[in-house]
Amino acid sequence: MAKAYLIGLDFGTESARGVRIDVVTGRQEDSVVHPYDHGVITAALPGGRALPPAFALQDPDDYLAAAAAILTMLGAGRRIVSIGIDFTASSPLPTTRDGTPLSRLLPDQPHAYVKLWKHAAAQPYAEAINRRGGDFLQNFGGRLSGEWLLAKAAQLRDEAPDIWKLAERFIEAGDWLVSQLAGREARSLNFAAYKAQYLPATGYPRDAVPGLADRLAAPLEVGSPAGELTDDWLKRTGIAGPTVIAVAAIDSHAVVPAVNAVHNRTLVSALGTSAAYLYLTDRFQPLPRGLEGAAENAALPGFWGYEAGQPAFGDVLAWFARAFPRDADDGRNFELYNAAAAAIRPGTHPVLAIDWWSGNRVPFADTNLSGLLVGLNLTTTAPAIYRALIEGLCFGARTIIEVLAAGGLPTERLIVTGGVAERSPLIVQTLADVTGLDAEVPLIDNATSVGAAIHRAVAAGVVAGFAEGQARFGAERMQRYRPDAELAPIYDEIYAHYRALTEDDEVRKTMRSLSALASRTYANSQAGRNEVEHNATGHNETGRNETGRADEIAAGASGQR
Amino acid sequence: MAKAYLIGLDFGTESARGVRIDVVTGRQEDSVVHPYDHGVITAALPGGRALPPAFALQDPDDYLAAAAAILTMLGAGRRIVSIGIDFTASSPLPTTRDGTPLSRLLPDQPHAYVKLWKHAAAQPYAEAINRRGGDFLQNFGGRLSGEWLLAKAAQLRDEAPDIWKLAERFIEAGDWLVSQLAGREARSLNFAAYKAQYLPATGYPRDAVPGLADRLAAPLEVGSPAGELTDDWLKRTGIAGPTVIAVAAIDSHAVVPAVNAVHNRTLVSALGTSAAYLYLTDRFQPLPRGLEGAAENAALPGFWGYEAGQPAFGDVLAWFARAFPRDADDGRNFELYNAAAAAIRPGTHPVLAIDWWSGNRVPFADTNLSGLLVGLNLTTTAPAIYRALIEGLCFGARTIIEVLAAGGLPTERLIVTGGVAERSPLIVQTLADVTGLDAEVPLIDNATSVGAAIHRAVAAGVVAGFAEGQARFGAERMQRYRPDAELAPIYDEIYAHYRALTEDDEVRKTMRSLSALASRTYANSQAGRNEVEHNATGHNETGRNETGRADEIAAGASGQR
Repeated sequence: MAKAYLIGLDFGTESARGVRIDVVTGRQEDSVVHPYDHGVITAALPGGRALPPAFALQDPDDYLAAAAAILTMLGAGRRIVSIGIDFTASSPLPTTRDGTPLSRLLPDQPHAYVKLWKHAAAQPYAEAINRRGGDFLQNFGGRLSGEWLLAKAAQLRDEAPDIWKLAERFIEAGDWLVSQLAGREARSLNFAAYKAQYLPATGYPRDAVPGLADRLAAPLEVGSPAGELTDDWLKRTGIAGPTVIAVAAIDSHAVVPAVNAVHNRTLVSALGTSAAYLYLTDRFQPLPRGLEGAAENAALPGFWGYEAGQPAFGDVLAWFARAFPRDADDGRNFELYNAAAAAIRPGTHPVLAIDWWSGNRVPFADTNLSGLLVGLNLTTTAPAIYRALIEGLCFGARTIIEVLAAGGLPTERLIVTGGVAERSPLIVQTLADVTGLDAEVPLIDNATSVGAAIHRAVAAGVVAGFAEGQARFGAERMQRYRPDAELAPIYDEIYAHYRALTEDDEVRKTMRSLSALASRTYANSQAGRNEVEHNATGHNETGRNETGRADEIAAGASGQR
Repeated sequence: MAKAYLIGLDFGTESARGVRIDVVTGRQEDSVVHPYDHGVITAALPGGRALPPAFALQDPDDYLAAAAAILTMLGAGRRIVSIGIDFTASSPLPTTRDGTPLSRLLPDQPHAYVKLWKHAAAQPYAEAINRRGGDFLQNFGGRLSGEWLLAKAAQLRDEAPDIWKLAERFIEAGDWLVSQLAGREARSLNFAAYKAQYLPATGYPRDAVPGLADRLAAPLEVGSPAGELTDDWLKRTGIAGPTVIAVAAIDSHAVVPAVNAVHNRTLVSALGTSAAYLYLTDRFQPLPRGLEGAAENAALPGFWGYEAGQPAFGDVLAWFARAFPRDADDGRNFELYNAAAAAIRPGTHPVLAIDWWSGNRVPFADTNLSGLLVGLNLTTTAPAIYRALIEGLCFGARTIIEVLAAGGLPTERLIVTGGVAERSPLIVQTLADVTGLDAEVPLIDNATSVGAAIHRAVAAGVVAGFAEGQARFGAERMQRYRPDAELAPIYDEIYAHYRALTEDDEVRKTMRSLSALASRTYANSQAGRNEVEHNATGHNETGRNETGRADEIAAGASGQR
């Protein structure tokens, strides 16, 4: 009899990754990564149209291309019992009723594309919804994030009403991809509960964004089947079916059973370009101040899952290494910075970073906040700033842990996953030192894809549930980083200043004003440009005037010789 | 008859510069620059001994070598009627009664060297003196700077009592060099009034630093003769005498008559590695909050001169360009950054910088404050940060102008001098845009050296006074940068945030604590090192312990397969 396999597909920010796992042995046999053709679209659409500030879009056809390539590579000629997908969230797109993405029909319209999780331009809409309030915000601290589906729907409806009218569906990219593979719409409770504030008792919120609830569909629990891979896809990939597709999951939640985290009072952190945190407990507590949201059975059946995050994590370090390169090669660049930063003894360089390069989630839920560096002097080195960025990111993590604990949700285990954790022992050690907790890194390749595969194993009935899935397919061993007690007083002191500065109203007011100023200046420059474009009579562009130039003049009274 | 010349010598932070001027035509005939052999000594003494943090020393013999080289180059075989010297301040050194520098006798003792103006380690001593207070602080806002002579004397007396005992003289480097050339001690009222709080009525303060007044000597007014170049120096340089040496002047004050600034209600800014400001008025006003000090007749006879400064100006930009180079060549590096920064429209990049890379003088007089950047996000570019640094430095300048105006000292003319002003139109234009004032740059080479020469012309009786010296030898034409009215609202808004953040107690508290933490960590590491050095029995150094390492462990309860 032919061997049977699971495939897990992990759709990240820049690329998709797939693994093929032997159902019987639990061994990963192969894995492959496929970058998206258009990556993250921030400056201009593929056709050239410039985007407003804070936009971050993706082309959904890039997902199909990646899925086809990976499934063919891993599955052609093999018996695949189950394929699973996890995805970034919230990354919704508008489609017709049959699932055709509007970006395919209207390629020159920014609002027709996927609004990627880190698209920050919907924040004002989140704030407007928050001001109106509503019961649907009860497990979310009364506050939506601008990154979530409701805010993005509100932005689409307001800024592009024609596209909103065409959008018979507004759907998470993960659900959309599952629907494409299974040939029928299948939404996930995981996305719906956390990103669209769906409650089993009352459904989707009906008043927050008028008309939105009609564009959503009732969700299914994670681990349940969405359908089977269509004949078209079987033909296209060469896979031998039947192949169960499970409902999609949020990437940072999907990883849980792969990293030995199906345990009470466990905090799982996924450190990648951003950092996503999921706290698992069997006991409900009211949402602590600043946490993003909580839902029952939505991340994992039998658990309450509390979500938190840092919207930029590895992104901050990548920004620094690219803005200030020491080597033309990206990888070598990181190596150089990591080595130099590791050689610096904590406390000897007086730089403190607030890690909000893409805004802040916990505790302020505000995308208009920004990064800060203080303590700079003439002896400050580039590696000292790099190290301060690492420390600042770990202070952000500690803030989340402290906010949880203050709300009756103590962290007993800290599990650290994601590409950053695998590649940078310095970061994980700093996280342990800063938080005072053992940081456990699961020794497993492609953890998120494996997590996705375990979801599918549950969906396909290969295992009885997630605990069994974890035991069969999850990480067998953990790398444990213990905190250095000697550094605790130093980090405690710097962290106290980090918290005080982040809580300082003037600091946050400044960040928000700078962000608003940049948006206004941009809007003015666009208005000026449009005026010029619309004015064909040849008047001068109203730009910088003539007064800003230096003139040479004779010196004053005493200048005559 | 042989032509007669003036020589002006300008002793800056990194090098000395000299010019030779024809007495009759006022024309500069030649100029030369000579870098100091040991530059600024911050990390270790020439003999290798490491320095504590915040030390910035110089070797006084470097000044003699520079003076000899420049005087020979400019003066050999020529009739020089007068030589003048201006100098950084306060940069004092301990000497024996006959002027022998103690660094020549005790080369391994940090406290035997010149404490350069930017030596920041005396700040605690300034604060101790300020807490005790005294009448001598009346024109200084009740507050000494840690950069001034009294604080540096107090540090020397406290930290190196043996050297203090040997130091029969404690003398500004400018006065010391004049004394070396003239063969007799001659101190300047310019240094004494601003940096040692000398008042004509009461002399030097007697109680602030016990024993200090006995190590100082009564000063002479600027523009008066200190003596004649000694026979030894005439022989060494080949100069044809007799050659009058005038008393020394502070570099930023010496420049005044060379740049057409001998005028009422004029602010002269000297933008170099640091920025020094001198406001000239014929009417006394009580010292505005945050200004550094005021004295009558000390900068220029007939005027009150109010002093202010930014301890790092060009230094901040140089720090950035060196920490994050775009080109191996320093000059090309600056060109690239300046061009890229000039192309950025103000307000479109949301970065705000507080310019305190070497602490702040106005309004806080605190060397433990530090630089800050806020508004950083993932789209921030290196040139945008560079531009923000330029803007932050100009915000610092505007703060000084506003503090003056609030104290009844309005700026009617803003004259901008110094190497940074000459090299960077972008910085001067930004200064005009940020302050709303016309910024006038004198078109004259070697302005400070020429100013020094005018002092000597007055001393030698070549001209009747400074107004005549300005007319004969000073700048004939000024380059005027007019503010761009369109940018005013943008800069007003960013500046308002700059001021609010600088006035925010939490921000400054954080800066001070980070600085204190770095000092403590350094002290601890030194203590640890000494312990090890003194302990020859071979015990392990108490350093980072064993707990900071990662262990590989089996996964938890579910980890058994």
